[in-house]
Amino acid sequence: MSAKLKTAVLGATGYSGFELTRILTRHPRLAKPLLLRRSAENDVPGCMAEIFPALSGNGGYPLTSFSWAELKREGVELLFFATPHEVSRSLVPEAVARGLRVIDLSGAWRLQKEQHRSIYQFEDEDAISAAELTQKAVYGLPELNGDRIRQASIIANPGCFATSVILALVPVLKAGIVDQQRGIVSDSKSGVSGAGKEPTARTHFVSVADNLSAYSVFNHRHVGEILEQLELDASTLMFTPHLLPIPRGILSTIYLHLNRGMTEAELEACFRNFYSGRLWVRIFRSPQLPQIQFSLNTNHCDIGFCLADDGRRVVLVSCIDNLLKGAAGQAVQNMNLMYGWGEEEGLR
Amino acid sequence: MSAKLKTAVLGATGYSGFELTRILTRHPRLAKPLLLRRSAENDVPGCMAEIFPALSGNGGYPLTSFSWAELKREGVELLFFATPHEVSRSLVPEAVARGLRVIDLSGAWRLQKEQHRSIYQFEDEDAISAAELTQKAVYGLPELNGDRIRQASIIANPGCFATSVILALVPVLKAGIVDQQRGIVSDSKSGVSGAGKEPTARTHFVSVADNLSAYSVFNHRHVGEILEQLELDASTLMFTPHLLPIPRGILSTIYLHLNRGMTEAELEACFRNFYSGRLWVRIFRSPQLPQIQFSLNTNHCDIGFCLADDGRRVVLVSCIDNLLKGAAGQAVQNMNLMYGWGEEEGLR
Amino acid sequence: MSAKLKTAVLGATGYSGFELTRILTRHPRLAKPLLLRRSAENDVPGCMAEIFPALSGNGGYPLTSFSWAELKREGVELLFFATPHEVSRSLVPEAVARGLRVIDLSGAWRLQKEQHRSIYQFEDEDAISAAELTQKAVYGLPELNGDRIRQASIIANPGCFATSVILALVPVLKAGIVDQQRGIVSDSKSGVSGAGKEPTARTHFVSVADNLSAYSVFNHRHVGEILEQLELDASTLMFTPHLLPIPRGILSTIYLHLNRGMTEAELEACFRNFYSGRLWVRIFRSPQLPQIQFSLNTNHCDIGFCLADDGRRVVLVSCIDNLLKGAAGQAVQNMNLMYGWGEEEGLR
Amino acid sequence: MSAKLKTAVLGATGYSGFELTRILTRHPRLAKPLLLRRSAENDVPGCMAEIFPALSGNGGYPLTSFSWAELKREGVELLFFATPHEVSRSLVPEAVARGLRVIDLSGAWRLQKEQHRSIYQFEDEDAISAAELTQKAVYGLPELNGDRIRQASIIANPGCFATSVILALVPVLKAGIVDQQRGIVSDSKSGVSGAGKEPTARTHFVSVADNLSAYSVFNHRHVGEILEQLELDASTLMFTPHLLPIPRGILSTIYLHLNRGMTEAELEACFRNFYSGRLWVRIFRSPQLPQIQFSLNTNHCDIGFCLADDGRRVVLVSCIDNLLKGAAGQAVQNMNLMYGWGEEEGLR
Repeated sequence: MSAKLKTAVLGATGYSGFELTRILTRHPRLAKPLLLRRSAENDVPGCMAEIFPALSGNGGYPLTSFSWAELKREGVELLFFATPHEVSRSLVPEAVARGLRVIDLSGAWRLQKEQHRSIYQFEDEDAISAAELTQKAVYGLPELNGDRIRQASIIANPGCFATSVILALVPVLKAGIVDQQRGIVSDSKSGVSGAGKEPTARTHFVSVADNLSAYSVFNHRHVGEILEQLELDASTLMFTPHLLPIPRGILSTIYLHLNRGMTEAELEACFRNFYSGRLWVRIFRSPQLPQIQFSLNTNHCDIGFCLADDGRRVVLVSCIDNLLKGAAGQAVQNMNLMYGWGEEEGLR
Repeated sequence: MSAKLKTAVLGATGYSGFELTRILTRHPRLAKPLLLRRSAENDVPGCMAEIFPALSGNGGYPLTSFSWAELKREGVELLFFATPHEVSRSLVPEAVARGLRVIDLSGAWRLQKEQHRSIYQFEDEDAISAAELTQKAVYGLPELNGDRIRQASIIANPGCFATSVILALVPVLKAGIVDQQRGIVSDSKSGVSGAGKEPTARTHFVSVADNLSAYSVFNHRHVGEILEQLELDASTLMFTPHLLPIPRGILSTIYLHLNRGMTEAELEACFRNFYSGRLWVRIFRSPQLPQIQFSLNTNHCDIGFCLADDGRRVVLVSCIDNLLKGAAGQAVQNMNLMYGWGEEEGLR
Repeated sequence: MSAKLKTAVLGATGYSGFELTRILTRHPRLAKPLLLRRSAENDVPGCMAEIFPALSGNGGYPLTSFSWAELKREGVELLFFATPHEVSRSLVPEAVARGLRVIDLSGAWRLQKEQHRSIYQFEDEDAISAAELTQKAVYGLPELNGDRIRQASIIANPGCFATSVILALVPVLKAGIVDQQRGIVSDSKSGVSGAGKEPTARTHFVSVADNLSAYSVFNHRHVGEILEQLELDASTLMFTPHLLPIPRGILSTIYLHLNRGMTEAELEACFRNFYSGRLWVRIFRSPQLPQIQFSLNTNHCDIGFCLADDGRRVVLVSCIDNLLKGAAGQAVQNMNLMYGWGEEEGLR
Repeated sequence: MSAKLKTAVLGATGYSGFELTRILTRHPRLAKPLLLRRSAENDVPGCMAEIFPALSGNGGYPLTSFSWAELKREGVELLFFATPHEVSRSLVPEAVARGLRVIDLSGAWRLQKEQHRSIYQFEDEDAISAAELTQKAVYGLPELNGDRIRQASIIANPGCFATSVILALVPVLKAGIVDQQRGIVSDSKSGVSGAGKEPTARTHFVSVADNLSAYSVFNHRHVGEILEQLELDASTLMFTPHLLPIPRGILSTIYLHLNRGMTEAELEACFRNFYSGRLWVRIFRSPQLPQIQFSLNTNHCDIGFCLADDGRRVVLVSCIDNLLKGAAGQAVQNMNLMYGWGEEEGLR
């Protein structure tokens, strides 16, 4: 085996950063990852185990203050951003200019179209450079953009909801069997880790437990990604996220009409053919459907379907672990592609 | 105040029966209700408090073996069935023949059309009598069928999912503003008490916790009620129930297209006008939406909505407590109407 | 019925204040309570329903800015403090000076002994007045101090953990059957509402769900109350609170040794005799034990026990709803005593 | 690396069997394990993935009907029993007679003393052989009995509660610093998977959620193991298990008195010295305490402590994942010792 790749994680202390740290630490192709905190985070302890005691007992995963000099000194080649999108938007340009490859888990570089991007209200210091990087950035959904990911210097790792919706819809859309005139509905539900680690009235245990709530109806940030990757008109899709009283996991229930009558076998074949040979997508045979538990703590996206008696109305069910296939696991899958390794390495 | 009404509950030991018992016991217009068990239930203890220790300390709510003679001896006028639908289907005819008024919480008498009813596979001993009773039975949704409920001898108390979906949709459908060609989606989620008290692999804590699952896609029993009450074609509606990791509560997220552009204010007015003066329906002002917690332990149906920028795509959110407005509370509301009392009596 | 009592609640927007508001609003002896916010709370909305949408639809429970003038104008006689203890400590003296009767739900006035009180680090402006009020304040546990409560002008409403522990222990301690030399252990567990409404890392859903944690071992603020009310030496009791992944409810498991061998029947009689005629304490017959669910949404304290074969080792289990018998319900029970009403009024 | 060990699991379809299957399948020293079902289980599907869809997509883990001939044909050397104790009690003698090494996850062979064993009410066909095997069986707590485990032909894998209690107490008991006269209390709490996969009224979601309950007070089966391994008198220990509303994890809060005053540093040293070099026990530094989340999905036993100001009263907190260190993980740790492998192999 050749020399081990040197990686770093900026923002290791969030939920996605924590999962990423766990995976990278055990990945057979990697040197021990550098775990970085920004200097502003004065109150961040000296090691990950102080924040996540589950990590204690293995040396504690020390945290280092972020600086470009430190990255250079350590010989880092690949930098993961598990940071808020403002931070990624501000720091990625210099990282790329310094020759680093980047995998960004935030929404900073996912959107090509200004109308979708405007919801983020980016304030780029150098708008030209930002526009160039936006062009260069590859949307890191390996089952869709594998070839481009292999060559990419910037990966915009997809949003968690977007991953669950795109992977369910892309086979039937590419097959041209969806009646887009009738519209598509994605009713998506996520565990609370998707809302981030910040304590708020909304993430307080008493607000979430014994409850379910819809939010960001018609204006969730992930809608733009879905529309761009699936090449849909905005009016075609109604997407509603909900907050589930569970720590992690996403289930999307997707409703659509076919433009011709089909059998279950034909529909199943459509999914199986599209994902033939793809390790991290599992197709369920109707009437069995995925459940959130089945994909928890794995990098799988599980997809199932039901076809109405009329052979035209379809319900898709798609499940992922929002912190793995929806964030850190997918980031590692992208890294594996970028470096020519097996797509499953470090993810079992 | 006139003499107190004598009621009885058959099936008091299930979840709905328990809630019904609690409400009836405190209802100011009622004598102490007779709590009945069928003789086959040999293992049922002698009082409710042995099954529901939360009831202990107030005399224990004794259970009596069911017989028609016992009902007569006690002078019961109104009989609630909180039983499986097979039991209701078998016993209601004699109850009616004996001059009792009946409120049935099961699905036994809700459906007028054979194509919807067939899913229950009823085996009526006397098909003619059953057909007559089916005609006589009034679907007990007070906000929809109030006048007929007042006169009814048999109330078919609505299903929990059906209540949440019908109440959200009826104002916009009656107003004629829905583009039915584009279809309606109801993505509904329920707490586990909706699945009943029977311990099964599906209701095991470990199966439900940290999970979400869809079930009965395209073939849930409540679909027929929704279609009949809303006078919809079967192909118009896609309805998917989900099992939430919470004990109780239902949230339905409903997607539809308007047949003309509207403003939020117009849409809100549509709901407010329809439910003007109706105590148990609360309309939320956009962008505030109902959450399951808000209606828990109340008889309210909470309805909110979001309108897309195009003024045509609409998301409705409807919440109820499945054991109250979705079962026992609604049954009491129906009783209040049947006897000319205030709709809120016993339900505060 | 005589004129209705005019009450006010300061701090109505916390969890306890919310429950208190709900109870007072429906209490048959009371005028509509005045709901007060302090002026510093600039961001508090104009009515309770904006904070607790579950309250919407009944006029919304308007909030009024707190001032002594407002209390006077409204003719308030009884003032509830559902505020942090610093606020109660600072405002109660003036309330009493103005002739109001006070029920304080905080820990400000519960402790007579300086060594217990020091943990609160009160900074009294007028130490002499504070000392006098401390003397005057009656610890509001109705089953223990009923006679003094009837005459009190200041009620120090007990802490939630303290209520569950004291009510379980007082019958056996008063009976003189506990071997205090061997020590008493109270292992107590509480739902998250006991930690307050403030969003913190500790109350974040992801921190609490699928978890259990012990905290404040050997230094919880409620220990002083327990020791004072039970007249125990500090070294006799080991008390450990735990945070449960549920919204509300407390279960205390209490371990002790008897100083002589007893039978189950004798032990049960000890509890039943002590609480004879007390409405809000329910004694369970061994081997049945209370569970948190049984007392949720009630004002009951449920107490059960197990006696080892040796007739000497005892485990007590005590359950309450921390927001009712552990806070707002008990406050109303105290009010009922203060005004000579039935102990159950407004609490069914 | 030498030839891979051939193992089999009887009872792979329970919760512990499922975890064991997952670990054994990835263990680098093992051939693919044989997954066995008893013939009586007619309704068991043909592969694990049908029961646990989370396992689908990797060949499905086929299940084979149990027979001794099959074990011989497959060349199995080590047989895991993840079966009810009656099954283990009945089948282990023949397994041993046939030269197989056995790791039994049930309580069948854990207890040496008849007074503790009687609670199981074993009906041995051959009492002499059973008595011999009982003698031969080694209690498989690696941190306590490592040397004997290496030589064992039968491992009685410890109970989950017992593991958490014994590991916390053994360092202070062996150090002779506990005042046993004052008694020891272990208040233990477990997630629902500890109650097994059988659906019962007790494991129904609605019974467990928003609840906490104590059970088997003074008569839980694991008490005998604790007393035997710690060489305690029955009257010394009060042990109460509780059912937590979480799927998995155990936390034991243990109360004891020291027989002399100590400092925190001395007490910490006592634990650190005892577990020096032991990979799977983590000692927390006071005041930090373990929480259930920290050890979930790991084979760690986490131990923390608090010492009262008097230097004599101690609270220990001990956490494990009941399905790993409390069952399947510990079984694999035992296997690693039996075959001279690293204690951590297959468990990272």
